[in-house]
Amino acid sequence: MNYTKNGVENLKIAYIGGGSKGWAWTLMSDLATAEDLSGQVALYDIDFKAAKDNEIIGKKYASHEKSKSKFDYKACETIDEALAGADFVIISILPATLDEMYSDVHAPEKYGIYQSVGDTTGPGGIIRALRTLPMIEYIAKKIEEHCPGAWVINYTNPMTVITATLYRVFPKIKAFGCCHEVFGTQKLLASMLRTEYGYDKIRLQEIKCNVMGVNHFTWLTEAKYKNIDLFPLYKEFANKYYETGYNEESNDNWMNTDLMCGHRVKFELFRRYGYIAAAGDRHLAEFCEGSWFLKNPEQVKDWKFTLTTVDSRRKGYQDRFDQSAKLISGEIEPEIGDTGEEGVQQMRSLLGLTEMVTNVNIPNYGQIPNLPLGAVVETNARFTSNTLTPIFTGNLPIEIYPLITRIVAEQELVIEAALERNLEKAFVAFMNNPLINLSKKDARALFDEMVENTKEYLKEYF
Amino acid sequence: MNYTKNGVENLKIAYIGGGSKGWAWTLMSDLATAEDLSGQVALYDIDFKAAKDNEIIGKKYASHEKSKSKFDYKACETIDEALAGADFVIISILPATLDEMYSDVHAPEKYGIYQSVGDTTGPGGIIRALRTLPMIEYIAKKIEEHCPGAWVINYTNPMTVITATLYRVFPKIKAFGCCHEVFGTQKLLASMLRTEYGYDKIRLQEIKCNVMGVNHFTWLTEAKYKNIDLFPLYKEFANKYYETGYNEESNDNWMNTDLMCGHRVKFELFRRYGYIAAAGDRHLAEFCEGSWFLKNPEQVKDWKFTLTTVDSRRKGYQDRFDQSAKLISGEIEPEIGDTGEEGVQQMRSLLGLTEMVTNVNIPNYGQIPNLPLGAVVETNARFTSNTLTPIFTGNLPIEIYPLITRIVAEQELVIEAALERNLEKAFVAFMNNPLINLSKKDARALFDEMVENTKEYLKEYF
Amino acid sequence: MNYTKNGVENLKIAYIGGGSKGWAWTLMSDLATAEDLSGQVALYDIDFKAAKDNEIIGKKYASHEKSKSKFDYKACETIDEALAGADFVIISILPATLDEMYSDVHAPEKYGIYQSVGDTTGPGGIIRALRTLPMIEYIAKKIEEHCPGAWVINYTNPMTVITATLYRVFPKIKAFGCCHEVFGTQKLLASMLRTEYGYDKIRLQEIKCNVMGVNHFTWLTEAKYKNIDLFPLYKEFANKYYETGYNEESNDNWMNTDLMCGHRVKFELFRRYGYIAAAGDRHLAEFCEGSWFLKNPEQVKDWKFTLTTVDSRRKGYQDRFDQSAKLISGEIEPEIGDTGEEGVQQMRSLLGLTEMVTNVNIPNYGQIPNLPLGAVVETNARFTSNTLTPIFTGNLPIEIYPLITRIVAEQELVIEAALERNLEKAFVAFMNNPLINLSKKDARALFDEMVENTKEYLKEYF
Amino acid sequence: MNYTKNGVENLKIAYIGGGSKGWAWTLMSDLATAEDLSGQVALYDIDFKAAKDNEIIGKKYASHEKSKSKFDYKACETIDEALAGADFVIISILPATLDEMYSDVHAPEKYGIYQSVGDTTGPGGIIRALRTLPMIEYIAKKIEEHCPGAWVINYTNPMTVITATLYRVFPKIKAFGCCHEVFGTQKLLASMLRTEYGYDKIRLQEIKCNVMGVNHFTWLTEAKYKNIDLFPLYKEFANKYYETGYNEESNDNWMNTDLMCGHRVKFELFRRYGYIAAAGDRHLAEFCEGSWFLKNPEQVKDWKFTLTTVDSRRKGYQDRFDQSAKLISGEIEPEIGDTGEEGVQQMRSLLGLTEMVTNVNIPNYGQIPNLPLGAVVETNARFTSNTLTPIFTGNLPIEIYPLITRIVAEQELVIEAALERNLEKAFVAFMNNPLINLSKKDARALFDEMVENTKEYLKEYF
Repeated sequence: MNYTKNGVENLKIAYIGGGSKGWAWTLMSDLATAEDLSGQVALYDIDFKAAKDNEIIGKKYASHEKSKSKFDYKACETIDEALAGADFVIISILPATLDEMYSDVHAPEKYGIYQSVGDTTGPGGIIRALRTLPMIEYIAKKIEEHCPGAWVINYTNPMTVITATLYRVFPKIKAFGCCHEVFGTQKLLASMLRTEYGYDKIRLQEIKCNVMGVNHFTWLTEAKYKNIDLFPLYKEFANKYYETGYNEESNDNWMNTDLMCGHRVKFELFRRYGYIAAAGDRHLAEFCEGSWFLKNPEQVKDWKFTLTTVDSRRKGYQDRFDQSAKLISGEIEPEIGDTGEEGVQQMRSLLGLTEMVTNVNIPNYGQIPNLPLGAVVETNARFTSNTLTPIFTGNLPIEIYPLITRIVAEQELVIEAALERNLEKAFVAFMNNPLINLSKKDARALFDEMVENTKEYLKEYF
Repeated sequence: MNYTKNGVENLKIAYIGGGSKGWAWTLMSDLATAEDLSGQVALYDIDFKAAKDNEIIGKKYASHEKSKSKFDYKACETIDEALAGADFVIISILPATLDEMYSDVHAPEKYGIYQSVGDTTGPGGIIRALRTLPMIEYIAKKIEEHCPGAWVINYTNPMTVITATLYRVFPKIKAFGCCHEVFGTQKLLASMLRTEYGYDKIRLQEIKCNVMGVNHFTWLTEAKYKNIDLFPLYKEFANKYYETGYNEESNDNWMNTDLMCGHRVKFELFRRYGYIAAAGDRHLAEFCEGSWFLKNPEQVKDWKFTLTTVDSRRKGYQDRFDQSAKLISGEIEPEIGDTGEEGVQQMRSLLGLTEMVTNVNIPNYGQIPNLPLGAVVETNARFTSNTLTPIFTGNLPIEIYPLITRIVAEQELVIEAALERNLEKAFVAFMNNPLINLSKKDARALFDEMVENTKEYLKEYF
Repeated sequence: MNYTKNGVENLKIAYIGGGSKGWAWTLMSDLATAEDLSGQVALYDIDFKAAKDNEIIGKKYASHEKSKSKFDYKACETIDEALAGADFVIISILPATLDEMYSDVHAPEKYGIYQSVGDTTGPGGIIRALRTLPMIEYIAKKIEEHCPGAWVINYTNPMTVITATLYRVFPKIKAFGCCHEVFGTQKLLASMLRTEYGYDKIRLQEIKCNVMGVNHFTWLTEAKYKNIDLFPLYKEFANKYYETGYNEESNDNWMNTDLMCGHRVKFELFRRYGYIAAAGDRHLAEFCEGSWFLKNPEQVKDWKFTLTTVDSRRKGYQDRFDQSAKLISGEIEPEIGDTGEEGVQQMRSLLGLTEMVTNVNIPNYGQIPNLPLGAVVETNARFTSNTLTPIFTGNLPIEIYPLITRIVAEQELVIEAALERNLEKAFVAFMNNPLINLSKKDARALFDEMVENTKEYLKEYF
Repeated sequence: MNYTKNGVENLKIAYIGGGSKGWAWTLMSDLATAEDLSGQVALYDIDFKAAKDNEIIGKKYASHEKSKSKFDYKACETIDEALAGADFVIISILPATLDEMYSDVHAPEKYGIYQSVGDTTGPGGIIRALRTLPMIEYIAKKIEEHCPGAWVINYTNPMTVITATLYRVFPKIKAFGCCHEVFGTQKLLASMLRTEYGYDKIRLQEIKCNVMGVNHFTWLTEAKYKNIDLFPLYKEFANKYYETGYNEESNDNWMNTDLMCGHRVKFELFRRYGYIAAAGDRHLAEFCEGSWFLKNPEQVKDWKFTLTTVDSRRKGYQDRFDQSAKLISGEIEPEIGDTGEEGVQQMRSLLGLTEMVTNVNIPNYGQIPNLPLGAVVETNARFTSNTLTPIFTGNLPIEIYPLITRIVAEQELVIEAALERNLEKAFVAFMNNPLINLSKKDARALFDEMVENTKEYLKEYF
């Protein structure tokens, strides 16, 4: 790459999982509007056809009339080719297929264990990690080989253990995990200010927070708007909507979509602990004792969030597959606009064209002093020229400390288990998980079944 | 006090809870055999009659033909008189009566919550702490006033939060909490070496351990005998007796007594986590999810430990009451011999007459780096001249880290709740407790009932 | 204060040392250009006449034709009146008079100790601290009484110990120390890029640094411009100009002014330690062994920096006194323009109108893990709505660790000495200072003389 | 090795530097009196003849009529043979010859730098480290290869950097550094109690201390005898003998021997900092600014300690050489008695035959929280079965913190320099040393000369 008067050209972005029919298009849109950047996006996917499709679609984004930048898209047959000389690497893969995810999410149901997402923690998240981390190990080694100085942005779940694995395998990697769940809570706070307190024109960036915890179980210990401490307001708000749930203005009803929620889980956690849990309720619920929110589908409905089934994911995939075909055929046009994602903005800051502060997942160097060093945590961080520096958050408050130390310990064990290909160690984490309140015998049976169901992707463990 | 050629004379020991019909007699016996010590024991008890009885009994111990030392016993009508000029203070009280303890232990049963002890953690431990800590606050202030340089030995449960409260109220106090539960595990290891591996004449002091955790939930991360690493041996041992339980040689059967156990809980925890839990099974079980060991009385029986009922405690009290009467009347004689307790040995070390290393409960100054500073933890410590110094243990292993951080957080919240007289804060801890896996509504009902049952001792909270 | 559509009105800024003929005018200028702010500046000074003069001058700034804001200025007869209800407090005082400073700077010369500034460390800085900190203690108590929620910005030297004292006296204070010395080094790096490497239009804000250390002895462990690591460039640069010194473009010659320097000290420290010392050479030299840069005036000249005499300060004061008179009489007009100071920008960020990251002096909460907690350190920090959060810097590199731990220890001792009014403790720090390589006897004589010279302001120590 | 009823037999002790004519004989004596131990001592020395001589002498000790144990001595031609299967390894070598030491100690004198020992810090200590650490690197690798589970006891100076290097090269090594300097101070305190306060029969083990710092610059922050705090007594004592020095009873006059001192340096450091420096004055002086105690030979004499010349060492070597010849010829007999060294006692504790607490040098795991982790520090530690655990000391007091952080940083840099074979990095440490207050030019000339003088042993650096 090289700098020009206005920005950077000849940037090389390697996209691992480049057949993606979601994030990849968002990136294409964001790059199209980045008038200060140009270069190439190298698309690598184990499904080469999917990457090739995205090469076609990427070119359409780049040549769109609204496009302000010059980016070329190229599907690569090998990861080596994609990574060679990359300035940025994006990791956004689907570990295995939806069949494995079906097992992750639904196999535990026969034991009364319901998961609203199943990709981060709980039985599904742990088994998913076991099959994903060896892939990540492979990718990390390839990055070390081909582009050790590149910035690596991970969007794949389970976010925390993947990001940690990148660092364990290649300690000098410059990687971080990105997730927009905190934005959702900032949006909720902005919505509260508008609808309950009469403030208008509030952008979520104006909601200033102290963010700490682990991905999808992130907490705000401070939230401010101008000189207003949002905690007393949120307390009123949580109490008011505790029973009914709260519908954000943007959607008529929390039930319209899998991802929406009535925020009752969030309100309940606030009323219990006094701090704002900052992720979608579907995620938050999975880090708590199973009996609290996920006892059965009725309880989930009462708490006004949803269980995302793998069938609904299959449908979503099919929709995006159709959309892809139409984009290629020209039946539909790419849409270019504000995606709300920060990826390109982060790149721009790391290139020194601007700077920003946002929440990311990186190893704990001491930014959260009372969590183990080296564990990946989510806090705010400052993006500047070729540098990502965590904001110091202070200690986790004692009320939520045990909730988060528990998950950090689980994640550390899962990482060790995966890197050592040690299923027994993984089982220790499995048994300790808050959703898995089973007898050891049942826990073992479930674990073994889930391993069996997904064994095609766990060969290295045997 | 003053030093003589052979030891110390004019020592003053203040005994808070001096009407005790257990520890107090043990102390009397140990002091009687301490030929290098002499002085006075000032007995203070809110039940003055009980203290007076012990004055009589103490004098009998002191004048016993086997007695080698000169100690005088005196019941004091005020705590001030007892503490004035004390060199050592012993705290061994019963907070409230067995009626309150009845509520602590048995009120939760209607919600399916069984407690094998009920004085340390769980609903019983938390409510007991709420009524005890204000008493401890009072005692700490009296110590600061009357004998700020005295060494304070606490034997009362809940040990951890009581010891912590002494330090919160009077930060310069020289206090520690003493408990013999770890000895029981050292004894078990010695027994294993004898019965399984043919070693004989092993004293428990020869079993060298790295001790870490919190009282009654203490763990050994190393255990050695001479150059033998006891972990592989214990692994065999735990596997061999996992199903049947293990009866120590000293007793025919684990069911003979409330305090005995088959060590199955200990074996199970070892098999789960790879470290040796070092307390009686009755205590260990209470720190785990209720469903593991304490689901119902049948499960407890299966795990081969016992639920100590308050009725059995009442019976024990009555027995000791009878024994007290007989000691006073002369119907029975005091018994003087090796009690196995270390209290007098610790005093001797703190006086500089000898030195020793044993496990105690003191604030975390960094001896366990990955637990919060200031929380009271149990580790080995060195007793020397007027100094008690913790042995550095290193970090808690990641497998047991979440188990212990959870209880540390609970205890910190309970201490704050008690010092602030804030029942709502206590309820946060109550809800988070592993035994209390109830809906919030049920948890609240139980909490309110237990508070109501014991309100006579919780007046300051209203 | 209250928020309006465009910003904040009715802001109250209390200025302690409001008779200042330097910073005060800068603030007046910056406030005049702040179109989103309006309110009152309350000027308090022990020299009421000086405050009154500034009231007149402030009004002139506010009513200047270029002024875009509405600020009122008011001299207050008591500190209580000035602080009551303040939103921001500025502390910018001269502790005692230039007579005391004369002793600070020049009394040590008879022992061969030369000081280029004399207000931060060295014999002068230590004695200055002794007389200043009791004043700061008084101010901190008044702030706690009248405006505990106000943000307090300290500009007074010795910066570090003053800021620390504010927190020791009133731990919940929201205070920080501000200094522009780091900007000077960023400016030097920008100048280097322009003159040596052909980059143009570089603003100092584009030089991104990792800042750590203590005020006036601050170091950059990373410096970047876009994707360029500035360390290899600075190495070439330091070597090239090591002998001759480097004149920044803005001034013909480093000797033109007291504050200018040839950066030889900075280059030397870089060549020794491999990190960029980021303050004026006059300051840096004072933290080093006296023999390195401050042996005698000739050596200072060789190193191309200057000894700021108190006579030159007297002259500067007289100039500003004259300027004040002329501003009042109208003989000259206030100048309104970009002052380069960040104070008003920081206020705006703390009000939530914008946000920024810059370097400040606040207690170490762990942002520099290998310095003592609670010591005031200088690092980058993020200013947002009513919140100032340090950026995590990581450990000080081992090369410069001993240089900075030494000064941190000195400062901690001086703070203790001042708060305890304990001259003996201060003398321990005095003897340990790198500039004071004297026999203990000589050190004592000098200390006693300097205390005697300034005893009018040290009465509380006797 | 194997355990018997009474102890351990077939122990293998490898002695690296087994031609030693000092420590080796002490060990022989101590082993001869160890009735619970038997086995073999394998003597390895680059001077095989010297090892062979000691084989003969060792056999004489072992067969002495007072000998209570059975030890065999064997000179080995290779280090591999000596280490194979060792249970304990002793490292006690002379790095290079006295010719190199002559340069270390005396070359700096022409720059006015006098060293009283020259083997730990200062110019001599740093150059000695440079040639020694590569040897230690070699030994550590051999230990990892041949006896990774052995306990390694280092007696060689520079103690701290050697012990640290063992751990850097082979992180799982079980090594510690042993030094008796602290005993000397305990002995002084016992002497004080006898001569000044009338106590008699005090053994140095009864002086209980909190030890912290680095080897030869170790400090006591607490010292107790029974219930007596020795600090106020030591204060009186230091003041009383500050001018005259104090002669311990055991010797008529401090000048009789090179190692004796009048403790004036110790008294001065106590008066400055309030803590007891616990090493011989010759060592302590070398860690301070050169102008304090080591300005010139007259000043040294005034402070009542001595400069140990290399000529006097040569003489000592010759004496021991003669003694060796006489031991071999039978002209003199080995002397068996209490040597005052703890090495064999430590082995016995590590074998689990007993236990002990004493001061040792091991990496900082957190036992001194405000020193860098991993740096080798000296504190008390507990020796038990196959385990060495540091006693937690708490933070270094702020008064002495800068003195010790400075030397820790120097040592860390020297270790890095040696392991990287990087003389430039070593020079940074050299320049920063308190004794080397030279211009950089002079410092460089001295450094280069000292390197040149000893280049035969520094070949790997070029």
